[in-house]
Amino acid sequence: MSGRLIGLGTGPGDPELLTLKAVRALAAADVVAFFAKRGRASNARRIVDGLLRPDAVELPLAYPVTTELPVSDAGYRTAIDGFYETAAAAVAAHLEAGRTVAVLSEGDPLFYGSYMHLHVRLAGRFPTTVIAGISAMAGAWSAAGLPIVQGDDVLSVLPGTLDEETLCRRLRESEAIVIMKVGRNLPAIRRALARAGRLEAAVYVERGTMAGERRLRLADKGDDEAPYFSLVLVPGWVARPGAAALSHAAGGQ
Amino acid sequence: MSGRLIGLGTGPGDPELLTLKAVRALAAADVVAFFAKRGRASNARRIVDGLLRPDAVELPLAYPVTTELPVSDAGYRTAIDGFYETAAAAVAAHLEAGRTVAVLSEGDPLFYGSYMHLHVRLAGRFPTTVIAGISAMAGAWSAAGLPIVQGDDVLSVLPGTLDEETLCRRLRESEAIVIMKVGRNLPAIRRALARAGRLEAAVYVERGTMAGERRLRLADKGDDEAPYFSLVLVPGWVARPGAAALSHAAGGQ
Repeated sequence: MSGRLIGLGTGPGDPELLTLKAVRALAAADVVAFFAKRGRASNARRIVDGLLRPDAVELPLAYPVTTELPVSDAGYRTAIDGFYETAAAAVAAHLEAGRTVAVLSEGDPLFYGSYMHLHVRLAGRFPTTVIAGISAMAGAWSAAGLPIVQGDDVLSVLPGTLDEETLCRRLRESEAIVIMKVGRNLPAIRRALARAGRLEAAVYVERGTMAGERRLRLADKGDDEAPYFSLVLVPGWVARPGAAALSHAAGGQ
Repeated sequence: MSGRLIGLGTGPGDPELLTLKAVRALAAADVVAFFAKRGRASNARRIVDGLLRPDAVELPLAYPVTTELPVSDAGYRTAIDGFYETAAAAVAAHLEAGRTVAVLSEGDPLFYGSYMHLHVRLAGRFPTTVIAGISAMAGAWSAAGLPIVQGDDVLSVLPGTLDEETLCRRLRESEAIVIMKVGRNLPAIRRALARAGRLEAAVYVERGTMAGERRLRLADKGDDEAPYFSLVLVPGWVARPGAAALSHAAGGQ
């Protein structure tokens, strides 16, 4: 009898945003695996502090590269694919021995999560459960009290790595926008928002729901420094009763 | 001292997908409010069964209309705006009396949730907390084990009410798609997916994470009957290691 693979969403950072299902799965897991950059603590592991079985085996999966290389780079692809193969084999060995393995995933496992690289390699071979988690973007718009989409609004979730022209066009075609992976792309994102007439409504969020959360109107952000995992939210709720009264929301409540 | 307004996400249906924060807020709330169609039980209320304080006041907010009228209809707009004003006043009366009011919202409160109509009317006047919930779409792709977006994928969340041409264009421009409010729009959605070459990858989900959940490849769905709140998922993870092996995911695991 093989063990069960569990893709476990830890939510965006606040441990209170774990689901009951995730907490129960953690309390039962034989092995708890998590991705981390070499030499750095895992944020997902920190979120679940105190929720593991005392005798649980911890399985850190340390990325082979620490610098941010373009995904298109061939050397990067080879190294990272090899790493995911090795990580999947390490998890598979525990599953074959009959152990339940919970793989932690910040936010939601199947929404831009690293867990997906294990899922596509293992879910066809072992019984698998994916436990949805609160995504970083949902944590951010909830903390900001910012209605994001209503009625027939279209929401586009875009990587900040898109070029300025494409970003601008997408901004014009969607009522609501979430821009992920802001980081070094902030200057182009800011220009695209301004050209599309959406800069005034845009909210910048850093470390959403975590200690050290930072949230402000993007127009008020004086510099172009942003960590990779920061977000920009452009809400779709416009020209409706009360929407104007909420413009204070970006500044916290 | 006024009470606190809480927009409380109940998640997509499975009570195990409530967050710890939601469970604690429910156990502390003086008043629990929820929207419902007249004469029908509230699904959000059902999800939190057994989690309310025994002495909590329940405040059902019953919609004035039971038939599905177009949002553009002037009579509908007047009736529904009046209803939201009345509902907001009923909640405000409790808040003014110093009571904490938790307003239940299926899925995530600020993501297409009815709670938003109270939020825009009350969050400027009373201390407010929004507790993020697992959205119906995240519940659905997790239950299906379907990786939805990775890397630089673009995700578009579209209402099924868009016309076929617009749907088709959006499908061609996004790696991943979620189509909400399928209902009577299913024939046009199906045609748009076929024209964009995405029908084979599309997964249809009805009552995600609830008793009676139904999930199948849309191409295998023989009829055009679909409830209003059903979803279509088109995953973005293509041409990557293992993606093909997951094509079984739509049929359950």
